[in-house]
Amino acid sequence: MSEPFVHELRVRYGECDPQGIVFNANYLLYLDVAFTELWRELVGPWMDMAERGVDVVVAEINLRFRGPGRYDDVLRITPRIVALGTSSLQLESEIARDGEVLLEARSRYVAVDATTWAKTEIPAWLRERLEPAVQAGDAIR
Amino acid sequence: MSEPFVHELRVRYGECDPQGIVFNANYLLYLDVAFTELWRELVGPWMDMAERGVDVVVAEINLRFRGPGRYDDVLRITPRIVALGTSSLQLESEIARDGEVLLEARSRYVAVDATTWAKTEIPAWLRERLEPAVQAGDAIR
Amino acid sequence: MSEPFVHELRVRYGECDPQGIVFNANYLLYLDVAFTELWRELVGPWMDMAERGVDVVVAEINLRFRGPGRYDDVLRITPRIVALGTSSLQLESEIARDGEVLLEARSRYVAVDATTWAKTEIPAWLRERLEPAVQAGDAIR
Amino acid sequence: MSEPFVHELRVRYGECDPQGIVFNANYLLYLDVAFTELWRELVGPWMDMAERGVDVVVAEINLRFRGPGRYDDVLRITPRIVALGTSSLQLESEIARDGEVLLEARSRYVAVDATTWAKTEIPAWLRERLEPAVQAGDAIR
Repeated sequence: MSEPFVHELRVRYGECDPQGIVFNANYLLYLDVAFTELWRELVGPWMDMAERGVDVVVAEINLRFRGPGRYDDVLRITPRIVALGTSSLQLESEIARDGEVLLEARSRYVAVDATTWAKTEIPAWLRERLEPAVQAGDAIR
Repeated sequence: MSEPFVHELRVRYGECDPQGIVFNANYLLYLDVAFTELWRELVGPWMDMAERGVDVVVAEINLRFRGPGRYDDVLRITPRIVALGTSSLQLESEIARDGEVLLEARSRYVAVDATTWAKTEIPAWLRERLEPAVQAGDAIR
Repeated sequence: MSEPFVHELRVRYGECDPQGIVFNANYLLYLDVAFTELWRELVGPWMDMAERGVDVVVAEINLRFRGPGRYDDVLRITPRIVALGTSSLQLESEIARDGEVLLEARSRYVAVDATTWAKTEIPAWLRERLEPAVQAGDAIR
Repeated sequence: MSEPFVHELRVRYGECDPQGIVFNANYLLYLDVAFTELWRELVGPWMDMAERGVDVVVAEINLRFRGPGRYDDVLRITPRIVALGTSSLQLESEIARDGEVLLEARSRYVAVDATTWAKTEIPAWLRERLEPAVQAGDAIR
């Protein structure tokens, strides 16, 4: 990917809280949607993976809140794979509105056997699809 | 049940919208929780049913909103089975706060085969548990 | 509008339940999003209304579930205003996937004073925007 | 508090995903609920604070997922204040089921002016309530 991957979505009314801002849990929902769409572009529909015996589960998520998203905002989410290990991958994502970063996230995902949920190596067919997308992460966060 | 079944829950911050009131979709979540708890009392844990080959799915829900629930409110939900057919059951529920009814709901559920999802008869073991709980519904709503 | 209004959205993973289907409460979320988008086309952003002293709140929603939506489905939602009263409006909506109707909904909304929440007449400026969009509802549902 | 604060809740059906486990975003919802209940015990209802001109917003959340929560599980959430600064506080929380830790979370919250949202000092009346509850955090996580 020469162009960074971007997924846009509009904040829904029911995702905002009495302060009028996006309720914090919904950022995880947004990050999940954006990762799914990145996956679709690189690998295909998320569910196809399980049919091939592998699943990818979240192990760690670190969120830094920079500013509030609001109802009806159009948010730009940019998930980038910054590391690809034997059985895990790391993701750095930003959620921004009109160029202002509202949230920074780092997540680590682990490949597991789709039946036993035991940690497993990322299979070759999947690695081939993910590897070209790996980008340098920020040096220090 | 001589006493009407009541399930209480407290409104969570993330369930309220920018108007400061419970977002309408969350009432369906509340009704589902209360029906599950009624089911636990009458039949047992919801998931045990699927292991016996039957599932119960919602076919119809009618909601009348009387007043808004707010953050931190303790709501009393009173689901009552008002009809038990060959393969379906009807539920009437109220959600109230301090004696004030905020929502009235009528729902219809249908028994299905847990594998094929084809409509099926409510099995005898289940009917035995549900029947004693059937109450007269409101004549006119 | 000569063309019927349609809003499309993709079912998110976190909106589906252990049965692998859209959790029923999320249909209300979808209907709310679609109504908001219809409103945007006819009137403008939803929040502008409150600044002009009026709000529109839901009074009644009736849902009929025809079939399950699934993860990653692209759903087509078609909300249509079928009646416009002095202070209320009625909406009929369908949610479909590939031409198969999954859900039918009828909702009634009431105009209220944005400050006191007392029922109020739909103001002339709003009525002018909504009236051209009113369509005939289904004769019998 | 000599006894550690614990908030228990039961996992709702609609909070679980097609894998049959708690969807990751809902852990933030659970943590928010538990923090609110800790706050109620130490300070009072969350909303009373805003009326006194202060609000507390989340600045950072770090989550480590140890194992999946499932539908109908009763989860024990133990939020502990581990640091209290001039304008911020840190929280460490665990979510466990039957003694098995499913999630570890560290969060940082910042006091803001309830009107301007500018960072502000934690006022004396609030500090008095929070200080006795501060506990030593884990040395290394």
